[in-house]
Amino acid sequence: MVRTDIPDIVIGRLPLYLRALNRLQQENLAFTSSHVLGQRLGISSAQIRKDLSLFGEFGKQGTGYHISTLIAELQRILHTDCEWQVALIGVGDLGRALAHYKGFVNRGFRITHLFDNDPAKIGQRIGEFEVLDAAVMEKTIREACIKVAMLSTPGDEAQDVADILVQAGIQAILNYAPITLLVPDGICVQYIDPVIHLQRMVYYLDLPV
Amino acid sequence: MVRTDIPDIVIGRLPLYLRALNRLQQENLAFTSSHVLGQRLGISSAQIRKDLSLFGEFGKQGTGYHISTLIAELQRILHTDCEWQVALIGVGDLGRALAHYKGFVNRGFRITHLFDNDPAKIGQRIGEFEVLDAAVMEKTIREACIKVAMLSTPGDEAQDVADILVQAGIQAILNYAPITLLVPDGICVQYIDPVIHLQRMVYYLDLPV
Repeated sequence: MVRTDIPDIVIGRLPLYLRALNRLQQENLAFTSSHVLGQRLGISSAQIRKDLSLFGEFGKQGTGYHISTLIAELQRILHTDCEWQVALIGVGDLGRALAHYKGFVNRGFRITHLFDNDPAKIGQRIGEFEVLDAAVMEKTIREACIKVAMLSTPGDEAQDVADILVQAGIQAILNYAPITLLVPDGICVQYIDPVIHLQRMVYYLDLPV
Repeated sequence: MVRTDIPDIVIGRLPLYLRALNRLQQENLAFTSSHVLGQRLGISSAQIRKDLSLFGEFGKQGTGYHISTLIAELQRILHTDCEWQVALIGVGDLGRALAHYKGFVNRGFRITHLFDNDPAKIGQRIGEFEVLDAAVMEKTIREACIKVAMLSTPGDEAQDVADILVQAGIQAILNYAPITLLVPDGICVQYIDPVIHLQRMVYYLDLPV
């Protein structure tokens, strides 16, 4: 059951806490504190304690947070204590990089289906996957009950693909195409567009000489 | 001159407005409204008007915003009315995809330098660039006055590379490596980690069956 009374901005920070905790665990630590987490993340320890307190009582005065317990709790809260199948649409350079990306392992996601509409790519193997024809995308995704998709098509194809994904039952889309998608209420979309991030940063820089 | 009294969350929305305006312009429109922009972006028109009003008076009652004028103003505000040189460090699958990415054109950024520490990659050509030895990264970046970098190395190398980038005078880092970077105050870092975005979305989904 999802608590809908938690601000989305708090939900957005939980994956950062989880990533930092995983890293601390890799460093063979058993306990940590909101202070250490805050230093790692550039977030105040008070904010971290406040965010976590919305979900329960995880830390102990004196010993702090038991890392593996808090990891398990955050995974449970975020629904990443299972492995979501992910469909990837568009197997250009970026799609190929994503198909090879090692960062999904043990974090709740596995790309299980690749689609493209380019006859030269359909049938190609990328790692353990065969690229499927985009023409069978809707049927395949529906039958496999896939709810999560990553979109790495060219911008001018992305909206049409998104429409099909929604028809197929996809509920969350991570969009790498540089356009804003129009989707029905209740469908989650997040955007990855490097230029958006770069533009946000150079606002704070002096102009180049 | 940067106005430091504007909340960063507002700055973060300006690139989205700019992208939507560019798209409207591609559709051969000359004028638009906060209402149309809001619909495209899933942001309320009131929010858009409020954000823009922090920087001046851009719209006219009745006719709305003149698109090309507002684009020029936002580019000026964001410091993307010039072209920033960008250094890209780490030329694996992802770095290669970024080097080929068409989405930088006319948006204020151009990747001008590629670096890697893999002897098999150094000297390779990727598009118009030759991959340079990471050993000359600090000197090369300093001499070229590059202020913006994209980091697509493996996670366990990213902090060391970031330290060198900061030494070299880099002020803004877009980090694709799945770790949180520790950098001095005043250095901007933004993160692109697909799993963070995926995790944030599946919180809202029912668990897979």
